[in-house]
Amino acid sequence: MPYIELSGLGEREVVPGFIGKFIHTNRMTVSFFTVRAGARLPPHSHPHEQVSIVVEGKLEMSLEGSVRVLERGIVASIPPNAEHSGLALSDCQIIDVFSPVREDYRQK
Amino acid sequence: MPYIELSGLGEREVVPGFIGKFIHTNRMTVSFFTVRAGARLPPHSHPHEQVSIVVEGKLEMSLEGSVRVLERGIVASIPPNAEHSGLALSDCQIIDVFSPVREDYRQK
Repeated sequence: MPYIELSGLGEREVVPGFIGKFIHTNRMTVSFFTVRAGARLPPHSHPHEQVSIVVEGKLEMSLEGSVRVLERGIVASIPPNAEHSGLALSDCQIIDVFSPVREDYRQK
Repeated sequence: MPYIELSGLGEREVVPGFIGKFIHTNRMTVSFFTVRAGARLPPHSHPHEQVSIVVEGKLEMSLEGSVRVLERGIVASIPPNAEHSGLALSDCQIIDVFSPVREDYRQK
């Protein structure tokens, strides 16, 4: 399926307030998150590389002890196994890309 | 460098009217393209997987003979070695993610 309408994809609330839709290729997962203001992503890590891109809104990220407000134009590159957490300072639209695939985000 | 300001990255016009900034991780290249209305991406292919996300504007894509206008909410997933081309129907902001890394997009 080369063209994908996001409106046709199922969504999953991976933590309260972080509602994602996912495209999986062989090597990557591309996720589209709608995030509610005030939602918190608790500290966690995973073996996947991640790049976090805020398209709308502001997300405070903590990454290995370094805190920064992500917004349009400020991107986080999260190495494998690096602990990170987040706090949505507003409603946000976020694109997170991962490699390898987030098998835990596949449709059950 | 976990946090990256796109304003601080060098840019490259990879084809006329497609001006990109690039973040390379170990496994991925995340590219941020500013595209001028009317710009054409000629037919080409590469061994990398690619996911094309139009954040603003409209881009007509042709992918292995199938044509679709990409805009917010309509994403293209391009398999390795699949021939594709594009025509910007308006000024666009596009995020393209690739795996593995686009070595040809690294700073020379």
